[in-house]
Amino acid sequence: MSELRQDPTTHDWVIIAKERAKRPSEFKKDNITRPYFPAHSESCPFCPGNEHRTPEAKVVYGEPGRWKTRVVPNKFAALRPEGNTEREEWGLFRKSPGYGNHEVIIETPRHDNFIPFMNDTEVEGLIRVYRDRYHALKKDPAIRTVIILKNHGRGAGTSLEHPHSQVVASPIVPPFVRRRYEIAIQHYDNTGRCLYCDLRENELEASERIVAETDYFVVVHPFASRYPFETWLMPKVHNSSFGNTSDEEIKDLSRVLKEVLLKLYVSLENPDYNLVIHTAPVDDEHKSYFLWHIQIIPRLTLAAGFELGSGIYINIALQRLSEILK
Amino acid sequence: MSELRQDPTTHDWVIIAKERAKRPSEFKKDNITRPYFPAHSESCPFCPGNEHRTPEAKVVYGEPGRWKTRVVPNKFAALRPEGNTEREEWGLFRKSPGYGNHEVIIETPRHDNFIPFMNDTEVEGLIRVYRDRYHALKKDPAIRTVIILKNHGRGAGTSLEHPHSQVVASPIVPPFVRRRYEIAIQHYDNTGRCLYCDLRENELEASERIVAETDYFVVVHPFASRYPFETWLMPKVHNSSFGNTSDEEIKDLSRVLKEVLLKLYVSLENPDYNLVIHTAPVDDEHKSYFLWHIQIIPRLTLAAGFELGSGIYINIALQRLSEILK
Repeated sequence: MSELRQDPTTHDWVIIAKERAKRPSEFKKDNITRPYFPAHSESCPFCPGNEHRTPEAKVVYGEPGRWKTRVVPNKFAALRPEGNTEREEWGLFRKSPGYGNHEVIIETPRHDNFIPFMNDTEVEGLIRVYRDRYHALKKDPAIRTVIILKNHGRGAGTSLEHPHSQVVASPIVPPFVRRRYEIAIQHYDNTGRCLYCDLRENELEASERIVAETDYFVVVHPFASRYPFETWLMPKVHNSSFGNTSDEEIKDLSRVLKEVLLKLYVSLENPDYNLVIHTAPVDDEHKSYFLWHIQIIPRLTLAAGFELGSGIYINIALQRLSEILK
Repeated sequence: MSELRQDPTTHDWVIIAKERAKRPSEFKKDNITRPYFPAHSESCPFCPGNEHRTPEAKVVYGEPGRWKTRVVPNKFAALRPEGNTEREEWGLFRKSPGYGNHEVIIETPRHDNFIPFMNDTEVEGLIRVYRDRYHALKKDPAIRTVIILKNHGRGAGTSLEHPHSQVVASPIVPPFVRRRYEIAIQHYDNTGRCLYCDLRENELEASERIVAETDYFVVVHPFASRYPFETWLMPKVHNSSFGNTSDEEIKDLSRVLKEVLLKLYVSLENPDYNLVIHTAPVDDEHKSYFLWHIQIIPRLTLAAGFELGSGIYINIALQRLSEILK
């Protein structure tokens, strides 16, 4: 018997289809066991020696000639800091120029230095770069939202192997974000508490879906996970914006993020995944009703017609990362 | 320069990234040109001779021993007509048993008889089966929504080649559907007109995205298409429910659906796609503010972290099917 579960943050429903459940080994990629990646690739535009193949760097971390992290404009930017943000309307059609910013963070000079293999200082440095870019891009007064994300592997929408992240700064707050806000505001108005903090406490109490807990973070496969092994990293200290994260929290986060991505890497053999930092719009950095958090979505299954047509996701696995590694 | 466009039916934004635009040939599958499918496959559970490999048929169309279409329960049903629909709550967690119905329509005995190759009578027959199943499943008083859909190809979420569709009857109205409703109701309350009918008329007037027009249907790549070659089939006569479709409309629809799917098949070389019939919840079959319609989503690109994190889709193609076949 399957189960319908409602996500308290979106009110969307998920079908947990136990009868279709797969073991982790069944998700492993068909032909590949632990693909080999070289430390350096001649043909990779992100590898040292090929710096001329990216747009000119906006920031370079490290010493001259020995960079650690490069921040470059996305060559195929979805949004660019050109033109204006004026809306135009004709009948029901509303549009505006694609103003904004779209950067690529080349995380490391090494082609094969994925987060699980980085040392603690490197991961911590990367998350500090995320925070730096958040603050740099929000300075533009036209920007309303900064989205920091990472696509890992072809099935997650990237063809570039070299470890990289992206930052998108947008002049609009997406309705997707607004809707989560409305739900969180209603909860706050009713209870006087942050919905996401309540959710974190409920998950801790239920305890069955907790992946890890540190001084500053709780890692959980949420109750209404849309995807097998969907994983959320939630701060323990209320804070609506990733931009406000303290150095101490970042240090703690870097350790636990590395641990979680290593668990994923080992147990599912380097799965494709998306990682997204969900943070408040820049006008709402100090709100009581929202908690910034990280969502990691392994791309083990495909959304099909039912998901596209109903918004209801069918999730066929419920194991915990912590369990399958025992 | 890219462009932000807002979908008037969901208020979600789409980025039309002209600079990333691909020609149709660039979307064609890497290794396959027009894969060969046999007329019959020994190993296919949907081929004649293997009827015992599906759950017992609920309806069989055609003559005994020579069926044309079989309707069977989904062997891996996401929802089943067992148990009840009672919600249970614990803290913020709300759940209910996976009550409902999930059927597979085996469209044809021929393994390779895709809709573009069916004769007119066969396509018309299939759409009548869709309507029959809608009416059969909505009879259950617990059912609120009936979703009819088709997944074609691995990239669209199915591993079964044999032409088949699915019908899912759900005891909940998904928030995804409710949100579109709220937007449509507000438009109706403001203007006295159906949002979708207005949209259809706006698209006809703009004319640049029209794929086909018949006596009863307009086929269009909508203004704020989320996916390359996303295609909507919209009725010309206002009607909120697919269940109310007349025989004459079905006849007309079968011709134009076949034409559109043939155009897709030829121009993009048998692309993976999802097809979904968006129809009003069963309690709302005669509403003035919603128009049932079909959405076809070719799966040529993958939603990545940005789409999952923002709900904003980046669409990299704007060609029309009608143009690329000229």
